[in-house]
Amino acid sequence: MELLKDYIRKYGNVPNDNVLKVDSFLNHQIDTNLMMELAKDFKEHFKDKKITKILTIETSGIAPSVFLGYLLNVPVVFMKKNSSAILDQNFYHTTVHSFTKNIDYDLILSKKYINEDDHVIFIDDFMANGEACLGALRIIKEANAHVSGIGIVIEKSFQNGRKLVEEKGYDIYSQVRIKSLRKETITFVDEK
Amino acid sequence: MELLKDYIRKYGNVPNDNVLKVDSFLNHQIDTNLMMELAKDFKEHFKDKKITKILTIETSGIAPSVFLGYLLNVPVVFMKKNSSAILDQNFYHTTVHSFTKNIDYDLILSKKYINEDDHVIFIDDFMANGEACLGALRIIKEANAHVSGIGIVIEKSFQNGRKLVEEKGYDIYSQVRIKSLRKETITFVDEK
Repeated sequence: MELLKDYIRKYGNVPNDNVLKVDSFLNHQIDTNLMMELAKDFKEHFKDKKITKILTIETSGIAPSVFLGYLLNVPVVFMKKNSSAILDQNFYHTTVHSFTKNIDYDLILSKKYINEDDHVIFIDDFMANGEACLGALRIIKEANAHVSGIGIVIEKSFQNGRKLVEEKGYDIYSQVRIKSLRKETITFVDEK
Repeated sequence: MELLKDYIRKYGNVPNDNVLKVDSFLNHQIDTNLMMELAKDFKEHFKDKKITKILTIETSGIAPSVFLGYLLNVPVVFMKKNSSAILDQNFYHTTVHSFTKNIDYDLILSKKYINEDDHVIFIDDFMANGEACLGALRIIKEANAHVSGIGIVIEKSFQNGRKLVEEKGYDIYSQVRIKSLRKETITFVDEK
């Protein structure tokens, strides 16, 4: 998605190799016009899919997801992150490892808000090692819901998330795929 | 706001006295059409104010805020909650006490995303004891930015948040004001 590449080139910050900060338009300050454009792009990409629900993860997945939900006229559910496992039979939960922060956390989702009739698009802001996405897929499977698609805003294609998710049999649509991040230099996949 | 009262009557859950759960449309599952209606109502209420930025708090303030930001064509900034104080001179931070959870946490906001030229609307999903709102006001003041308004989705008017914020000289616009919560009975302010 060219607009998003432009934002990343203009406003993205690469403080260290392999790290991309997009705090100025996605992860701290939110550019609401961009969010609507991301949602329109997701809507177009998934136009042939049956969709009853958008599933995302707090916090930064929420903004693009709610615009997509609005355009598709479906609800959004966000999984909560919890650092201590709560054993409650009213919730699905699965443990996810964050390589970035080197911690484990639980993703929590009330059983009330997903069921076997749901056709779910999972949306997240970043994909790196794919741990959060794989956790979401485990929960969708446990709920016997259908995966209609996986939409990622920014994929760090030099990490192995895509490979791991594709090995499970799922397709991923990423709006931007980043091949490498070096201080001052962002290279996109398929770029000359 | 009658539509929101209808949602609360229909989908709100009062598990104990003084507790209102709105997980089905705001705090876990998000009704995206309702969020747009909340944003339109905030836009109408604040139509005479100069607004350059929406300020909110992760997580549940984000959905109504991004629709409002979209309608007003201004960015949204969400303050992050942090349970351990990070002393970093690039961030504003202030400590807030949560009476609900009986914990202290820090609200964190990068100095890059608010400054003396900003005219800020603070939006949050709930107001109870006003601690989060007062924390936001401290940060806006520290940044020398202007407060254009405070917009709350659901005010628990039987707690003292409004009083404390008004004592500081600020007006609050709440879309719904709840007078009391008793098991099975939700009473709104100004209701017969």
